[in-house]
Amino acid sequence: MKATIITIGDEILIGQIVDTNSVSIAKHLNAAGIVVHEKVSIGDDSTQIVRSVERALGDSNVVVITGGLGPTKDDITKKTLAGMFGCELVPDQRVADHVKRMLEGRGIEFNELNRGQAMVPACCTVLFNAHGTAPGMWFERDGKVVVSLPGVPYEMEHLMQDEVMPRLKAHFELRQIIHRTMITAGLPESMLAAKIEAWENALPSYLKLAYLPNPGAVRLRLSAYEVEGESVSKEIERQFEALRKIIPHNIIGYETATMQELVHKLLTERGLTLATAESCTGGNIAARFTAMPGASAYFLCGVVSYSNASKHDILGVDPEVIARHGAVSEEVARRMAEGARRISGADYAIATTGIAGPAGGSAEKPVGTVWIAVATPHRTTAILKQCGSDRGQIIDRASAFAISLLRDELNGK
Amino acid sequence: MKATIITIGDEILIGQIVDTNSVSIAKHLNAAGIVVHEKVSIGDDSTQIVRSVERALGDSNVVVITGGLGPTKDDITKKTLAGMFGCELVPDQRVADHVKRMLEGRGIEFNELNRGQAMVPACCTVLFNAHGTAPGMWFERDGKVVVSLPGVPYEMEHLMQDEVMPRLKAHFELRQIIHRTMITAGLPESMLAAKIEAWENALPSYLKLAYLPNPGAVRLRLSAYEVEGESVSKEIERQFEALRKIIPHNIIGYETATMQELVHKLLTERGLTLATAESCTGGNIAARFTAMPGASAYFLCGVVSYSNASKHDILGVDPEVIARHGAVSEEVARRMAEGARRISGADYAIATTGIAGPAGGSAEKPVGTVWIAVATPHRTTAILKQCGSDRGQIIDRASAFAISLLRDELNGK
Repeated sequence: MKATIITIGDEILIGQIVDTNSVSIAKHLNAAGIVVHEKVSIGDDSTQIVRSVERALGDSNVVVITGGLGPTKDDITKKTLAGMFGCELVPDQRVADHVKRMLEGRGIEFNELNRGQAMVPACCTVLFNAHGTAPGMWFERDGKVVVSLPGVPYEMEHLMQDEVMPRLKAHFELRQIIHRTMITAGLPESMLAAKIEAWENALPSYLKLAYLPNPGAVRLRLSAYEVEGESVSKEIERQFEALRKIIPHNIIGYETATMQELVHKLLTERGLTLATAESCTGGNIAARFTAMPGASAYFLCGVVSYSNASKHDILGVDPEVIARHGAVSEEVARRMAEGARRISGADYAIATTGIAGPAGGSAEKPVGTVWIAVATPHRTTAILKQCGSDRGQIIDRASAFAISLLRDELNGK
Repeated sequence: MKATIITIGDEILIGQIVDTNSVSIAKHLNAAGIVVHEKVSIGDDSTQIVRSVERALGDSNVVVITGGLGPTKDDITKKTLAGMFGCELVPDQRVADHVKRMLEGRGIEFNELNRGQAMVPACCTVLFNAHGTAPGMWFERDGKVVVSLPGVPYEMEHLMQDEVMPRLKAHFELRQIIHRTMITAGLPESMLAAKIEAWENALPSYLKLAYLPNPGAVRLRLSAYEVEGESVSKEIERQFEALRKIIPHNIIGYETATMQELVHKLLTERGLTLATAESCTGGNIAARFTAMPGASAYFLCGVVSYSNASKHDILGVDPEVIARHGAVSEEVARRMAEGARRISGADYAIATTGIAGPAGGSAEKPVGTVWIAVATPHRTTAILKQCGSDRGQIIDRASAFAISLLRDELNGK
């Protein structure tokens, strides 16, 4: 069973927004055994919408569209789809009542534009949007399905989960898609590939191997499309077991787990606590941990000690040490980590101090220079990392390296 | 001049990664006056690659492709393009030397797979990738251009900027694309649209208006494609001036500025300083500010006071107050903001305390309940916000509301 995802909106084509809707839709479809064949982004243009939907219907059984359902003139998806499927827009009382109630709750008057939102194509099944004012729509043609959803991410998400997926599962006979990812570290992509070449060549043809390199890790994904789930899952287990014998020291986890998810799991399982002291990463490490449900069980506190004064006042780093070694130094990183551990009473603490740029670099300490330290109940470890040249990249990589160092310490490396 | 962007990789279609490359490429093309007509994501499949590139060449003058250039077997873009353009892969000494040098620097041996990376199609112009091992490629056919770039974001970014854009500007005679965005607040989308309807209807036909709703703001974008820049820019100024008279109290800024960029500008211009005290937003607010170059001029420190102990030990919030009102309360938010201001000596401080979920909600304080406070040299203000039901959404919205409250205080509202 194949699907095409179409996201509509000029803002996507001019690079004004990052399209995360299609990621979430792809996950839902994959989880149900529907293969996403292609993703397409187009502008708010009726000719282009019709052409893309018609072409997608040629390739796929399911077409999921998001965007262009707002109340304003630039939103034309609903009218265009009604035209394409050859029916009129008719008022829908349930939607009208719901829009009125939502607006009343926010103190907004119900106007002509909102009345337009309660008009739906007569030939579609309305997908009730409990979280917003634009309803979703379900069209059918020759057994194929076209679904149109609002572009607001969490409205789309709820409709996908509550309305679209149950209907797709009832409408089609679906098989399974299996993805299993192994995370490796310590071998760069080309060396890893050379090392596991014989294993890779001997894989059964229905298993597709992908290499996904990341800073500090290479993920290996085995995928099988539209298969009988149980036997294929077992075969993948067997293959990973064989791989484990080839690179026993390079496997750090499974699935799409991020480094912080692995550490989150370790800390949670062992009942250990964590604090952070961040300079150049500016709260990014704390935000990565606290984004995960359950973080409050181990994350005690974080300090973003951007100014030198705060390094001293909050973390107790001796101003002498900063003056002698500079704020970006092994000494300061160590004292920040130890300070965070001390003031929070946490078992472990991470610290970063570096030059995120674009200004502030020197010949000796160029932009991208980052000192990372981890303080544990037993010792403090510090490493120096060159984290790149772009501010966002530096923050991202320094955070990844820091969390990775904590993982190594937790594993007693 | 039209372009199609094609991103290649099974990981995109299964929702394993968010595609940010196409956003960056779209920005570059737009800035140079090239209209992105369509974005397409496909899997690592040679039939699909050829079909998509051929179709894109039918619609567009420029096709920019990313992905599938790694050293491993799942990367087939280079071989596929060589076949499509009818030429052999030949060794490139400059690329080989560069790959060797890069690997040596990282202590990695140069192997057969790396030798493959130094092979390039004989019929392309090699785009030298100073930051990675996979070179970019520039193909031409009937005056149209196909560019293939590696999928690693910063490698792609450097190649786009240093190699692709200068060549596109030399190859084509380009006109201009103008986008100007006005940011409004205080009017929901449908009320705003009703209020400015006459203005919208009177816009010249070459100006396209888009409504972009966000939590707390609606952005209005005027776009003109392939025009003479100067006169159109003046017309847009004139139109925004007219709009300013219709909604004088709802305009908060221009361009794609985020709320934190507006505050960043205000703080920088006025020489004021900032501190943060975050509970439920977990470092997200600090990370948003410190992601911007120049933040170190005003951002003194942030505290992620996740545990109640840290709210007391670092920020000085009285445990009695926490016990009486609960950690998620107006009182605690106010004391956190005041504490952050006090310990840092900052002029302004933001605090958040709420229930990010999924656990921890109650009938009285459901998941999504967030108290936000801003302490200023004159007073402390607190507001209560319902920030949704999903953890990520709650963190995101609470951060946006908090920064927005700071902006209001800075503007003396």
